[in-house]
Amino acid sequence: MQITASEIASLINGSIEGNAEQIITSVGKIEDAKPGDIAFLANAKYINHIYTTAASVVIVSNDLVLDKAVNCAIIRHPMPYYGFCQVLDKYFNPHQNRQGIHPTAVVSAQAKLGNKVYLGAYVVIEDGAEIADGAQLYPHVFVGKNAKVGKNTLLYAGVNLYSECIIGNNCIIHAGTAIGSDGFGFAPTPDGSYAKIPQIGNVIIEDNVETGANCCIDRATMGSTILRKGVKLDNMVQIAHNAEVGENTVIAGLSGVAGSAKVGKQCVIGAQVGIVGHITIADGTQIGGQSGIPKSIKEPNGQYIGSPAMPLKDAFKSQVLQRNLPALELRVRELENKIKELTKQQDTNS
Amino acid sequence: MQITASEIASLINGSIEGNAEQIITSVGKIEDAKPGDIAFLANAKYINHIYTTAASVVIVSNDLVLDKAVNCAIIRHPMPYYGFCQVLDKYFNPHQNRQGIHPTAVVSAQAKLGNKVYLGAYVVIEDGAEIADGAQLYPHVFVGKNAKVGKNTLLYAGVNLYSECIIGNNCIIHAGTAIGSDGFGFAPTPDGSYAKIPQIGNVIIEDNVETGANCCIDRATMGSTILRKGVKLDNMVQIAHNAEVGENTVIAGLSGVAGSAKVGKQCVIGAQVGIVGHITIADGTQIGGQSGIPKSIKEPNGQYIGSPAMPLKDAFKSQVLQRNLPALELRVRELENKIKELTKQQDTNS
Amino acid sequence: MQITASEIASLINGSIEGNAEQIITSVGKIEDAKPGDIAFLANAKYINHIYTTAASVVIVSNDLVLDKAVNCAIIRHPMPYYGFCQVLDKYFNPHQNRQGIHPTAVVSAQAKLGNKVYLGAYVVIEDGAEIADGAQLYPHVFVGKNAKVGKNTLLYAGVNLYSECIIGNNCIIHAGTAIGSDGFGFAPTPDGSYAKIPQIGNVIIEDNVETGANCCIDRATMGSTILRKGVKLDNMVQIAHNAEVGENTVIAGLSGVAGSAKVGKQCVIGAQVGIVGHITIADGTQIGGQSGIPKSIKEPNGQYIGSPAMPLKDAFKSQVLQRNLPALELRVRELENKIKELTKQQDTNS
Repeated sequence: MQITASEIASLINGSIEGNAEQIITSVGKIEDAKPGDIAFLANAKYINHIYTTAASVVIVSNDLVLDKAVNCAIIRHPMPYYGFCQVLDKYFNPHQNRQGIHPTAVVSAQAKLGNKVYLGAYVVIEDGAEIADGAQLYPHVFVGKNAKVGKNTLLYAGVNLYSECIIGNNCIIHAGTAIGSDGFGFAPTPDGSYAKIPQIGNVIIEDNVETGANCCIDRATMGSTILRKGVKLDNMVQIAHNAEVGENTVIAGLSGVAGSAKVGKQCVIGAQVGIVGHITIADGTQIGGQSGIPKSIKEPNGQYIGSPAMPLKDAFKSQVLQRNLPALELRVRELENKIKELTKQQDTNS
Repeated sequence: MQITASEIASLINGSIEGNAEQIITSVGKIEDAKPGDIAFLANAKYINHIYTTAASVVIVSNDLVLDKAVNCAIIRHPMPYYGFCQVLDKYFNPHQNRQGIHPTAVVSAQAKLGNKVYLGAYVVIEDGAEIADGAQLYPHVFVGKNAKVGKNTLLYAGVNLYSECIIGNNCIIHAGTAIGSDGFGFAPTPDGSYAKIPQIGNVIIEDNVETGANCCIDRATMGSTILRKGVKLDNMVQIAHNAEVGENTVIAGLSGVAGSAKVGKQCVIGAQVGIVGHITIADGTQIGGQSGIPKSIKEPNGQYIGSPAMPLKDAFKSQVLQRNLPALELRVRELENKIKELTKQQDTNS
Repeated sequence: MQITASEIASLINGSIEGNAEQIITSVGKIEDAKPGDIAFLANAKYINHIYTTAASVVIVSNDLVLDKAVNCAIIRHPMPYYGFCQVLDKYFNPHQNRQGIHPTAVVSAQAKLGNKVYLGAYVVIEDGAEIADGAQLYPHVFVGKNAKVGKNTLLYAGVNLYSECIIGNNCIIHAGTAIGSDGFGFAPTPDGSYAKIPQIGNVIIEDNVETGANCCIDRATMGSTILRKGVKLDNMVQIAHNAEVGENTVIAGLSGVAGSAKVGKQCVIGAQVGIVGHITIADGTQIGGQSGIPKSIKEPNGQYIGSPAMPLKDAFKSQVLQRNLPALELRVRELENKIKELTKQQDTNS
């Protein structure tokens, strides 16, 4: 891989300062890059690195002021990290686009395949399923009856897509994720056992969604469980039946959204969070790791933490007070002693 | 799919009021059903819907009193939701029964297959394994040596059943679940590293158990890890080595039962709950989401929440007091001020 | 399986007391063993079992004092449980070594296979991958481009090893674990959506590591996510991008280590623990189940619990005080009453 600084600048629409013909062969972090690396500087706090880095090219923000000479070529961009990501994606991504159908793929004659798809070894595609143009299915992926995979969507090895479920365009689903497993629904019966409530709905995943590995997104009892456009899930996230996650909401690992809950758009939800069923989370809500959300959050753009969760400010105050409980108990004990003394004195006085 | 109201009534042993020849083609929720749908009304709180629903047939409880005319046919049943589930299961279930052995299934000559089994593409069955009548194994299922799958049991795509493990009849195991992985057992060695304790036991899953996707049920060190009849696990539940879960107990997603713990029957355990090892949970215990259970619960039918868990009543009281800690601190401060004043006055007085 | 007590003694380098020719056919726990079983006694607290056990041979510690006659043969060893584990491993392990390449394994001509490897049915090995001598890959394992599997390493069914990732020697990876899935990294874009940050690093797993089933170990953004020598992970543990877990650290189920966190060596981390990103955990730290670690722990060998975590001693004190909050509130109320009375009296006095 040999690219010039000017090729990169033109890829990301940036402007060069310094040697436009500088050749780049790999990438690095600004603080430990080597010659031939491209790096970036997004946070002005780390500006000192720019004067000492061995990187050959550094992407910096348009308004960064350099008050000393630098040894590297500079590419200016309004969002340096984003620009850097585009470079990584174009030139250094280990996940190259794949194409072609492995002879061991078992594809139903009743399935539809688009152009330029990749079906890896031992992929199984059942009746009525549709795989759109440019979709990539790694080895051992299973696509059930009538399920749909959108354009340029990437399913890593061992993804299980149940029947009737739909994934949009430009999605990435990591290894082992199950989409469309039955919702957890049972009705008690007179003898104490539970009868299964058939889960006849499906899952709809809109465009530009990414899920981590080993996630579980259950099909709806009736209707659909929905991940809206641009949702990002980390590993091992559970989305229960009939839940809905709004546009561009991100949820970190090992979190769960219970049945029929509706999470707004542009939310940021930490790891190991639990959101109970049948509640609504307002747009822009931010929830700290390990929080439990027992009821609806109606005010948008709030910040919450704790189990049960409180507004962030209250939670910190409460944590301080809890840490100070021993001191508070001591103050009460001292008051009790003083009162005893006062009462004695008063009795003496009167 | 075209069924008459009278066919449904006879399926679920219900009694019809209204047009017995009414034709049903799909299902809906009572509040947003369309003509041709069957719906149900289980909770009398929502009775108003029955007068406005567009559903063609509604299943209601035997003792529901209607004080106005309705537009739909009515089927009465002692448990309307349960009756509705039977209808879903019979006529609308997207998971139809499958049968037949895909030519790519790799089945050991030393394995035993029952009648009418389904083995999907790329299923692997090892020596000594037994697959009973009517069992369905979706693509990419792995069944290790001497493992057994009971009658009419359904293993979804990518389930991994380790050697020697046993699943009973009429069970459902969702995609990616691992049954029989090694228990987490290590013995410290003199150099600070850990020696593996071989896990030579197995897993026994009794009849009518359902597990979600990507669960992990570890084999016992010696003996068996056991899920009793009718247990229901949600997605990503961990059952550790030598643990036992009692009859008809349900456990929600991302919960874990640690080694050698014994959970009673008819318990209801929320999501993200942790139960420590070597303890016993009494029958009928209910545990709220995100709780941590550090010691045995001996009294049956109790309700617990928190980490560490408390009885529900105490937990709510404690939450209120914690929320009121700032107020309590203020009261103590006021007392301190008053005492100071009183002491001053008294000094003046004396 | 028929082994004599003397064969076992020589395997584990122990010394026999009693019948050296005693034949052993199976294993049991000392309290419920049957004739023909070998058992062990590691904790002197349970010494009474040695006088009543039906086991034919029991491994005990070198310095155990027997003050009555026993019916079984005795093998003395410095670490009885460790000795017992060696016996289990040698004679009773259900996971025998496998060898041979199944004809359905799809192996790239550009991959390298060592001697005596096992590739189960439907294993897929891509270009440039290397499988070292004695490695065992169960059915449906996927090994991506340029990935490496070390000597005698065991990958159970359905493990997904992404491209460029490296597993050392003598490791065990349980079913469904994903190694090398993309780190959870996104950069906000001006329109509120997130741009994927390409994850171009890899995962390095050193020798003697074991992971449970359905774990997720993400590849680094740049550089490597690392599990050092001897790390043991339980089921469904998440290790995020660029994190590092130190030598011989054990992490229980459903725990997560966030991005770029660095966990020291010889740590013991309970289940459902969350460790936030970019922090450092000192060597020898012990963390209780369900704890949340929000900031670095610098002092080695500490014990922590809670969310947010506190030192163990403080946490217990704080739990007691919280449980006593109702009593504290009562004491404050009594003080308020007394003050009121005192103030009244004083007003009367003055």
